[in-house]
Amino acid sequence: MLKNVQPFVAGYRFGSVGVAHNGNLVNYMKLRAMLEDNGSIFNTSSDTEVVLHLIATSKTRPFFLRIVDACEKLEGAYSMVFLTEDKLVAVRDPYGFRPLVMGRRSNGAVVFASETCALDLIEATYEREVYPGEVLVVDKDGVQSLCLMPHPEPKQCIFEHIYFSLPNSVVFGRSVYESRHVFGEILATEAPVDCDVVIAVPDSGVVAALGYAEKAGVPFQQGLIRSHYVGRTFIEPSQKIRDFGVKLKLSPVRRVLEGKRVVVVDDSIVRGTTSSKIVRLLKEAGAKEVHMRIASPPIIASCYYGVDTPSSEELISNRMSVEEIREFIGCDSLAFLPLDSLKKLLGEESKDFCYACFSGKYPVQPKEIKVKRVGDFVDDGLNGSLESIDGGWVQAPQNQDAQKVSEAGKLSSLT
Amino acid sequence: MLKNVQPFVAGYRFGSVGVAHNGNLVNYMKLRAMLEDNGSIFNTSSDTEVVLHLIATSKTRPFFLRIVDACEKLEGAYSMVFLTEDKLVAVRDPYGFRPLVMGRRSNGAVVFASETCALDLIEATYEREVYPGEVLVVDKDGVQSLCLMPHPEPKQCIFEHIYFSLPNSVVFGRSVYESRHVFGEILATEAPVDCDVVIAVPDSGVVAALGYAEKAGVPFQQGLIRSHYVGRTFIEPSQKIRDFGVKLKLSPVRRVLEGKRVVVVDDSIVRGTTSSKIVRLLKEAGAKEVHMRIASPPIIASCYYGVDTPSSEELISNRMSVEEIREFIGCDSLAFLPLDSLKKLLGEESKDFCYACFSGKYPVQPKEIKVKRVGDFVDDGLNGSLESIDGGWVQAPQNQDAQKVSEAGKLSSLT
Amino acid sequence: MLKNVQPFVAGYRFGSVGVAHNGNLVNYMKLRAMLEDNGSIFNTSSDTEVVLHLIATSKTRPFFLRIVDACEKLEGAYSMVFLTEDKLVAVRDPYGFRPLVMGRRSNGAVVFASETCALDLIEATYEREVYPGEVLVVDKDGVQSLCLMPHPEPKQCIFEHIYFSLPNSVVFGRSVYESRHVFGEILATEAPVDCDVVIAVPDSGVVAALGYAEKAGVPFQQGLIRSHYVGRTFIEPSQKIRDFGVKLKLSPVRRVLEGKRVVVVDDSIVRGTTSSKIVRLLKEAGAKEVHMRIASPPIIASCYYGVDTPSSEELISNRMSVEEIREFIGCDSLAFLPLDSLKKLLGEESKDFCYACFSGKYPVQPKEIKVKRVGDFVDDGLNGSLESIDGGWVQAPQNQDAQKVSEAGKLSSLT
Amino acid sequence: MLKNVQPFVAGYRFGSVGVAHNGNLVNYMKLRAMLEDNGSIFNTSSDTEVVLHLIATSKTRPFFLRIVDACEKLEGAYSMVFLTEDKLVAVRDPYGFRPLVMGRRSNGAVVFASETCALDLIEATYEREVYPGEVLVVDKDGVQSLCLMPHPEPKQCIFEHIYFSLPNSVVFGRSVYESRHVFGEILATEAPVDCDVVIAVPDSGVVAALGYAEKAGVPFQQGLIRSHYVGRTFIEPSQKIRDFGVKLKLSPVRRVLEGKRVVVVDDSIVRGTTSSKIVRLLKEAGAKEVHMRIASPPIIASCYYGVDTPSSEELISNRMSVEEIREFIGCDSLAFLPLDSLKKLLGEESKDFCYACFSGKYPVQPKEIKVKRVGDFVDDGLNGSLESIDGGWVQAPQNQDAQKVSEAGKLSSLT
Repeated sequence: MLKNVQPFVAGYRFGSVGVAHNGNLVNYMKLRAMLEDNGSIFNTSSDTEVVLHLIATSKTRPFFLRIVDACEKLEGAYSMVFLTEDKLVAVRDPYGFRPLVMGRRSNGAVVFASETCALDLIEATYEREVYPGEVLVVDKDGVQSLCLMPHPEPKQCIFEHIYFSLPNSVVFGRSVYESRHVFGEILATEAPVDCDVVIAVPDSGVVAALGYAEKAGVPFQQGLIRSHYVGRTFIEPSQKIRDFGVKLKLSPVRRVLEGKRVVVVDDSIVRGTTSSKIVRLLKEAGAKEVHMRIASPPIIASCYYGVDTPSSEELISNRMSVEEIREFIGCDSLAFLPLDSLKKLLGEESKDFCYACFSGKYPVQPKEIKVKRVGDFVDDGLNGSLESIDGGWVQAPQNQDAQKVSEAGKLSSLT
Repeated sequence: MLKNVQPFVAGYRFGSVGVAHNGNLVNYMKLRAMLEDNGSIFNTSSDTEVVLHLIATSKTRPFFLRIVDACEKLEGAYSMVFLTEDKLVAVRDPYGFRPLVMGRRSNGAVVFASETCALDLIEATYEREVYPGEVLVVDKDGVQSLCLMPHPEPKQCIFEHIYFSLPNSVVFGRSVYESRHVFGEILATEAPVDCDVVIAVPDSGVVAALGYAEKAGVPFQQGLIRSHYVGRTFIEPSQKIRDFGVKLKLSPVRRVLEGKRVVVVDDSIVRGTTSSKIVRLLKEAGAKEVHMRIASPPIIASCYYGVDTPSSEELISNRMSVEEIREFIGCDSLAFLPLDSLKKLLGEESKDFCYACFSGKYPVQPKEIKVKRVGDFVDDGLNGSLESIDGGWVQAPQNQDAQKVSEAGKLSSLT
Repeated sequence: MLKNVQPFVAGYRFGSVGVAHNGNLVNYMKLRAMLEDNGSIFNTSSDTEVVLHLIATSKTRPFFLRIVDACEKLEGAYSMVFLTEDKLVAVRDPYGFRPLVMGRRSNGAVVFASETCALDLIEATYEREVYPGEVLVVDKDGVQSLCLMPHPEPKQCIFEHIYFSLPNSVVFGRSVYESRHVFGEILATEAPVDCDVVIAVPDSGVVAALGYAEKAGVPFQQGLIRSHYVGRTFIEPSQKIRDFGVKLKLSPVRRVLEGKRVVVVDDSIVRGTTSSKIVRLLKEAGAKEVHMRIASPPIIASCYYGVDTPSSEELISNRMSVEEIREFIGCDSLAFLPLDSLKKLLGEESKDFCYACFSGKYPVQPKEIKVKRVGDFVDDGLNGSLESIDGGWVQAPQNQDAQKVSEAGKLSSLT
Repeated sequence: MLKNVQPFVAGYRFGSVGVAHNGNLVNYMKLRAMLEDNGSIFNTSSDTEVVLHLIATSKTRPFFLRIVDACEKLEGAYSMVFLTEDKLVAVRDPYGFRPLVMGRRSNGAVVFASETCALDLIEATYEREVYPGEVLVVDKDGVQSLCLMPHPEPKQCIFEHIYFSLPNSVVFGRSVYESRHVFGEILATEAPVDCDVVIAVPDSGVVAALGYAEKAGVPFQQGLIRSHYVGRTFIEPSQKIRDFGVKLKLSPVRRVLEGKRVVVVDDSIVRGTTSSKIVRLLKEAGAKEVHMRIASPPIIASCYYGVDTPSSEELISNRMSVEEIREFIGCDSLAFLPLDSLKKLLGEESKDFCYACFSGKYPVQPKEIKVKRVGDFVDDGLNGSLESIDGGWVQAPQNQDAQKVSEAGKLSSLT
C-alpha cells in the first residue's frame, strides 16, 4: 500500500491537516462515488482520503465541527487523530471497534495511541480511553470533549485481546496479559489432555501457553523459536508485514520435543496452512503426540472493520468441522476456546464486544461488496447463510476416549 | 564495520576466492606490518584481509596448501570457509575457539556453518564438527581432511553456550537448550530465594529462567517484553547489532510484576548498566522484591578470540565484588553461576573449554595491545594482576539472614 | 518546482487523465479560491491543477465538453494536451499566446508539440498549428475540431522567436532561424560599428550573430564557449533549468579576442548582470573594444503569460536608459533591436503578436497581484504607468561621433 | 568503467594516497602478472592500480622516490597526479603523450590539469607545462622538479588539437583554436569546391568550419544543431560518454540547407557510420550537394596511448580508399587534411608529435595484444603491415571536373 502510507497530510485553504487512521469504513465506495460526482479528485484508495474530502466539502465552521460533520457520514470502524496548526483532534467511531487511548507526557503534552504500550514507550501516563462516539479537541486551552453520536452498546474488537495488542497493554480497560493467561487456563480446564510439555507458537501464543501450563501443572518450554537467524548474521525483516495469519519461519527445539507428548498453544487459526506446517515441524523434531490448543473461537466470517482477514471462502473454520480441521492439520487433538467461555469471562462487558468474525453477525451491516483495493483481499461479503459455530474441540479418533465430537462447541461432550 | 562486511571476495591470478571468517587473530598487527613492508595494500582493518594477503604471497601450490601455509602464521581464534571456482575449503584453528560444523543437503551438497540451527534453516543434515586444527577440502571428488596443526587440548568458547548460539543449536556436541536449562536449575539449587514468579531477560535468559522456575516450582511468566513496537507500526532494527552487553528496549508487564517477589534471570553481566536499568524498570512496575540470577560466572577479563567484550576496565565484575555489584544494580539479591559448578556440569569435557573471560588465564597469550579497529574496543591487555573470582552471590544486607557474603563464590555461606 | 512536475495525472471517476500544460493563467488565484470554497483539495500550486479541478467539478458531459467548460473559465495563456484512455485532446487559448502544433507519425498517429523541432526528433511530419481558441479531439474516428472561443486578433508570444524556440523550428508559421538571422542583419544595418570580429553569446545569440557578421562583412568567430567542462570530465547539469536570464558559465577564447574590436550579439537583456559579466570576461581576455548588440527590444514589463520573467523592478530596461545600461554593463556601445523594425519585419502578421514585455500593454489584463508560488517571482503587477521604450541604442561617450542618445529608440538619431 | 572510477585512493602503511591518471600503459599485463606473482591483490583492471602496487612494493624511500621507482617500470602514456597528506606529486611520461599543465590560484595554491581551460574555470593562472619525463613535487617548501627519464624527442598526441581539448585551451604550447582554424583554412585551400554555405558538425568541427568559411569567402551557418532537446523539456545526458566516434543526435536546419551546395566540416572519421548518417540528414533536409571536409588525416591505426579508438579492423580509413569512403558515406566530395600539410603547419615542433594513428608507426611499440578490459575495445595489435595513407581527398565521379583521384593524398592531383 505504498500510495496509502500514513500519515496523510492535506492542504486546505485554512491550513495543513495531518491525519492518522485505524479502521475500515463499510460505506467507502458510496461516499467516494458521491464525492467524485461533486468534483473531488482522489489520489489514493484509502479510507482516509474519503474523510479528508468530506472535511473539505463540509460547509460547517470551525474546523473541528467540519470533522464532526464528516464523521456523521461515516459507517464502520475508525479511530482517527487529526493535527492542525493549533489543535489535536481525536475521534473514535460510535461502536468503538478500534481502541484509542489518551495519555499525557511529563511536560503536560497530550498524546493519543491505539495501545497503552505505546504510551509506556514514550514515557507518557495513561489517562483514559477516548469513548466510543467521542470527539476530543486539544489546544492551548486544554481538552474539550464533544459527543459525536453515542451508541448504547459499544462493539469493541475482541481480536485486540486475542492477537493484535501487545501483552503489556491495557485495552478497553482490561489487561491483555491477563486475558490471554485466562484463555490458556480455560483451554486447560475445558480441553485437557495428558502431556509432558506445553509449548507456544511465538510470540502471540506465549501468554496463553503459560496459562495452560500453569493450570495443567505441566512444564512450559521453548519448543519453537522464531528464526530470523541465518548463520551468524541476523536477517531481520526490514518491515514485519502484519498480515493476519502469516507467521515467520519457526524452528523447533529437538531437545524439548523428542519423544514427548506436546501441547502447542496458538492464538487463532485462519487458513490452517500455518498450523499444518507447525504440526509437521514438531513431529519431524520427534514429538510423540501433538495436541493443538487455540486461544480463540473458530473464525468463520471475514472482518469489515479493519482486520485484514481473508474472504470467508479462505477461512478454514468456515469450510470444515473441527474434526476435519484436526485431520487437515494432522495433530492428535485440537480444541478452540469456546465462545461461551469467552463471553462468560468478559462478564458484564461481554455485550460491549464485537464477535462478528466468530458468529457472522455484523453490528454494522457491510453494505458493499468488499472491493479489492491495494493490499486488501477480495470478498463477496455473503456471509449471511453461514451457521455460527461456537468454539469446539475434538480428539483424534485413535484416542478412543474422545469419540464424541462436539461440532457445536459443546465442551461438555468431551470424554 | 561497514567496510569490513562479509563475505570478502579477492581476485587472485588463479581465480576469485570468497571468504567468510569468524574469530579474532592475536597477531594481526604483526602480520599486517610484515605484509605491508613487502608491498601488500590493505583496504580494510579486518583479520580476513590479512589471511587473503598471506594466501596471495604464499609461494606454495596448489591453492589449499597456500591456505595451510597462511594459517600456520595465524595465532588466535578463527573458523574460516573459502570458496573457489571448484573447491570449498573449511579451516578451524588448532584450539577450536569458535564452532564450525559440516552439514549436507538432500542433493548431496556439503555446507558449513557456525551453528547447527543454520543447517536446520536450509534443511541440511548435521554431519560432524570440523575438528580443531583441521582443513577440509570439498570438491567434485568428495571431502578430504588434512591436519593443520593438532593441539592436545581444545579450548572451545564457553560463551557459545551462555549467550551466542541459539537454543535450538548443538554446539561442540552439546545441546545449547539443555546447557542453559541446567544453568538455571543450578542457580535455583545453589542460590534459592523465596519468590512468587520467575521471569527472564529476553531472549537469551529465557531457557535458564525456565530451568530455574521448574527446579524452584514457581511459575514462569513473561514479565519483560522486547519492545520493537511503537504505536501500531513495528520499528524493527534493520540490523540487530550484536554488541555483547547491549540489549534492546524492554517493556515490563505490570500485571505480572505488581506486588510480587520476582526472580529475574539473565545470561551474563558485562558493564552492569543494563542490569541496573532492568531492576529499576521492574520496581517501577510494582515488583516488591527483585532477585537477579545470572546464568554465567562473573566476567573479569576481556576476550581476545572474537567476542566483542569491552576492556577489562569496563567490566563491572573486574572492578567490584558481588555485593558491590548488587548494590550498584539495586536488586535485593544477586547470584552468579559458580565456575566450579559450570565445570562440574561439563565433566570430562571441562578441560576442552576456554574460561579466559572468567579467569584471565589466556590459552593463547595476547601479544599485542588491542588496537581500536572499526567496531572494536581498545584494551591494554593487562589482566595479569587481577584476582580471579569464581561465581558468587550475595543477599541484600536488609535480609538479615544473609549476612555472610562469600566473595569467593562459596554458595554454602548462604544462610 | 519539484512538486509541479509535468505531466500531471488525475484519477477521475470515469478514468485517468494525463495533462501537459504550457502557459500561465492570470485568474489562477480567483479560480483556486472558488474551487477550495467548494471543497477541492489542492496538492500543488500549478495552473494545471486548477484545470483538473474545473474538469472534475464540471457538470457537463462528455469528457471533452468538460474541458471546454473548464477552459471557458480560464483567463491567460495556455496550450494544453489531455490524454484519456481513448482520446487525445489539445487546446490552445483564444489569444494563442503559446505555440502548439499537430504532427503525424508514419504509422498515422497524431502527436502534439510546442515546437516543430520536437516533431523532427520523433520523425513526425508537421501538419498544422492548433489555432487560437481551437479544441482538437483525436480518437479512433479521426481528428475533430471545435471552436472554444475565437478571438479576432491572436496575440502570439514574440519571445518564442527571440529566445525560447530552437532555430530549427517553425513557430507561428515562421522559421525561427530566419527570424534571428534577420534580427542580426537589422542590427548590423541600423547600429553599425567598426569591428574586427563578431561573436555570439551561446547558444541563443548565435544565429543573430551570424546574420550580423554576414551583413557587416566581418568574420564570425567562437569567442565564447559554454563551459560544462572541468578537467577531463564533463559535468553536465542534470537538468538545465531554463530560467530566463540565467546563463551557463561561459569561457572566453583569448586567441579570438586579443587586441580585437569585438561585436558580441545576445538575444536579450533581463537584469543586466549577465551582460555585465560577459563584457568583463571579454575585456579580461584582451578585447580592445566590446560592442554589445541585442537581438530584441528592451524588456520593460513582466510577463503574465508563461514566460518566467522577474518583476518589473528587476528589469534593467525598466529602470535605466540605454546609455545608463551601457554604462552599467561596461561596454563601448550598446544597441537593441528597435521594436518598429521588428514590427516592420513581421509585416501583415505584426498585429497577431504580443509585445507586452516591450510595451507594458497587456492583451489580457493581469487582474491579480502576482503571488509567489514555487519557482515564481513576486510582482505587484503595476506596470501601467511605465512609458514604453522602443528599442534604441547608444554609443559609448568616448566615441565622440555617437553623442546623441535616442531614449525613444529613434535610430535615426544615431550619428 | 564503474569499478575503475577516478580518483583512486590507496591506504599505505605511511598514509593514504589519492591518484588521478590519464593515459594508457603498453606493458600493463606484464606488470600485473609480475605483481600478482609476488602476492599483490588487484581489485580493478585499471592502469592506476598497477602504479599503486608498484609504489607499495618499491623498496625505495621516501614516497616521491617510490613514485619515480614505479614510473621507471611503466611503458606507454601517462600523466598522473598523486595527493598525499603533505605533498602533491605530478608526473608525465618521458614521451609526453598526454598534456599536463601546472597553474596557480590567487592564494598561491599549485594546481595541475590536463587542459588550460580547466585552470580558467577555477580561476587559476597557467604557469607552465609539466615537461615530458618530469616529476614535480609540491609541498610547503615549494615546487621541486626531478628528472624522471629524459627523452630526446617528445611524442605529444596530435589528437588533443584535433578533437580532445576545448578550443579555448592552450595545449603543448599552442592555441587549440588557432590549430583548428588553420586546419579549416588548409582544407579550403587544398580541397576547394564551389558552394553556397559552410556548416560544421557540432561541437568539435565548428572552429575548422569557421576557418574554411573565412578562407573560402562563403557564409558559415548553423546547419546542424546538437539536439538534447525534446519538446519543451531538456533531456541532457547525465553523463556524456566521451566515446571517440560517437556523436549526439543532430538536427538539421532546413532553412539553411534547402537547395544549397553545402560544405560540412567534421574533426575526423572513425568508423564512418556517423558521417554517413549526417550526409543523409543533410540531403533529406534539402541540400543539393554535400561536400565533406575532415580536419584531420585518415585514421588507419588504433591508439595504444589512451585514446579510446576501436580496433584497426573497425577504422574505415584502414579498410577503404578515400573514394570508397566517399561512396560509403554518400557525399558529393570528400577531403581529409593531408598529413604533410599538418606537419608543415607544426614546423619545427612537428617531430615532437605522435602520428601513430595516421601512420601506424608507434613511438613505443605495443608489446601486448590489447586485452578487453571494462570499457575498452579488443584489438590484436597487428597494424605493422598497414601502408600509411596520408590525407587525401576525392571528388564524386558525377562531378566530371574532378576525375583524377589522389589515393596517396597528393592534393595537387585535384582538377
